[in-house]
Amino acid sequence: MISIKELDQQAQQIVRQAGQNAFEKMGEDYQVDTKTNYTDLVTTIDRENEQLINNQLRKIDPDSQILSEEGFGDRQITNMQGHVWIVDPIDGTMNFVKQHNNFAVMMALYVDGSPVLGYILDVISGRLYHGRRGDGVYVNDKKLNQPANLGLRESLLAMNRTLTLSGNSSLKEIAQEAIGLRMYGSAGIEMIDVITGQLGAYISNLKPWDLAAGRMLAEELGLVVKSIDGRSINVLSSNLVLVATRQVSRDIRQIIN
Amino acid sequence: MISIKELDQQAQQIVRQAGQNAFEKMGEDYQVDTKTNYTDLVTTIDRENEQLINNQLRKIDPDSQILSEEGFGDRQITNMQGHVWIVDPIDGTMNFVKQHNNFAVMMALYVDGSPVLGYILDVISGRLYHGRRGDGVYVNDKKLNQPANLGLRESLLAMNRTLTLSGNSSLKEIAQEAIGLRMYGSAGIEMIDVITGQLGAYISNLKPWDLAAGRMLAEELGLVVKSIDGRSINVLSSNLVLVATRQVSRDIRQIIN
Repeated sequence: MISIKELDQQAQQIVRQAGQNAFEKMGEDYQVDTKTNYTDLVTTIDRENEQLINNQLRKIDPDSQILSEEGFGDRQITNMQGHVWIVDPIDGTMNFVKQHNNFAVMMALYVDGSPVLGYILDVISGRLYHGRRGDGVYVNDKKLNQPANLGLRESLLAMNRTLTLSGNSSLKEIAQEAIGLRMYGSAGIEMIDVITGQLGAYISNLKPWDLAAGRMLAEELGLVVKSIDGRSINVLSSNLVLVATRQVSRDIRQIIN
Repeated sequence: MISIKELDQQAQQIVRQAGQNAFEKMGEDYQVDTKTNYTDLVTTIDRENEQLINNQLRKIDPDSQILSEEGFGDRQITNMQGHVWIVDPIDGTMNFVKQHNNFAVMMALYVDGSPVLGYILDVISGRLYHGRRGDGVYVNDKKLNQPANLGLRESLLAMNRTLTLSGNSSLKEIAQEAIGLRMYGSAGIEMIDVITGQLGAYISNLKPWDLAAGRMLAEELGLVVKSIDGRSINVLSSNLVLVATRQVSRDIRQIIN
């Protein structure tokens, strides 16, 4: 059976291949469809990327389950036993379409429910953030340091539109208290900015494919990945998630309690 | 007397020099002070850049007035007669400090009140967006096309934190109606994204140095730079400004009327 270390090497190639595909096609004609409403897009490139990734994963890890955003993976995943790959073929599809920037390919491997491998590729910069449990987090070949443990009033915070405009008063107070508020429209890019210390916190409603890779990398760097009141989260559910330094997480619990 | 075209050539060099200075110093030790409150920063590098720019402008255009953010320019500018340079030595100081990314050097020349030259340097990417009235807008040596005239529901909108959290109900409706909301923390970066069509609109409270260069470039590309209800703005005042496609500007007037 293939080792986790070998899977890691091959998975990096797969993420890069999907990134290359998105990069080459972003200036060409492709079809854009809406999903739940006019702000929720999917393109033929998302679907192509998903099939490309899933086909490759089936080859290198045939007994695994695959959970992926656009539905070409395994339909029903109800348990996390064994190997489960969680895939976002293009995270930030709106930015892919409108900006040709600020989008990512994300992938993670969970083994018996625990995050073991994580990948976020910032396609335009070509920077691949990747990690293997116990081995730290790298950007391309460079190892990342743990971000400084700053508090909320020293930290930039990213929060999504819905929470900022329509969230409860605690969320608004948190957004007001941070040293600045940012919104990039891609969980992958926002996760990258937290793990590199450019943001001190990220709060958003996340689906499994938005969360899986960032959670792996953030926890490996000693960051907190929890609900905003400090409870554990289930990667198979939609969650209101906080990714933050330990101090920001404490400061936020003070505000909501 | 030096021609506008010659001033343009030299001004580009000055902006690049200031960008280089910020780039070289951003990883070093420098002093950070707060201005009006803990979210409003100024560093010794802002001040260095301002002196560098102002000294050079005095050499190439000695009879001009200079209005600059950190106060080394002419103290009192009450009229826009003749040449007025408006300078932001580092726009997005918070990002400069916290992110080492997403900040800009901005400069503009107004002649008898009209925008004539404009410069926004995205320091990290090294892309200089510049224009001379009647000659179009360039990124480095490449001429930019006019952005597509999309409406609000097809456009990403950038709006600052204060307006998003505490603005009136019309502003919230505008933020909700756009296809997506973004917040980058630098007027310069947000202006760049509007003139390149990555955003369809930007709404913020802007001081003269936040507005001067972006206004010049946006108007040269046929974009609207007005108050949100369509009135003209005075570059010497603080303004609530909309920079947008013509269609977004119409859609927004529909919402507020």
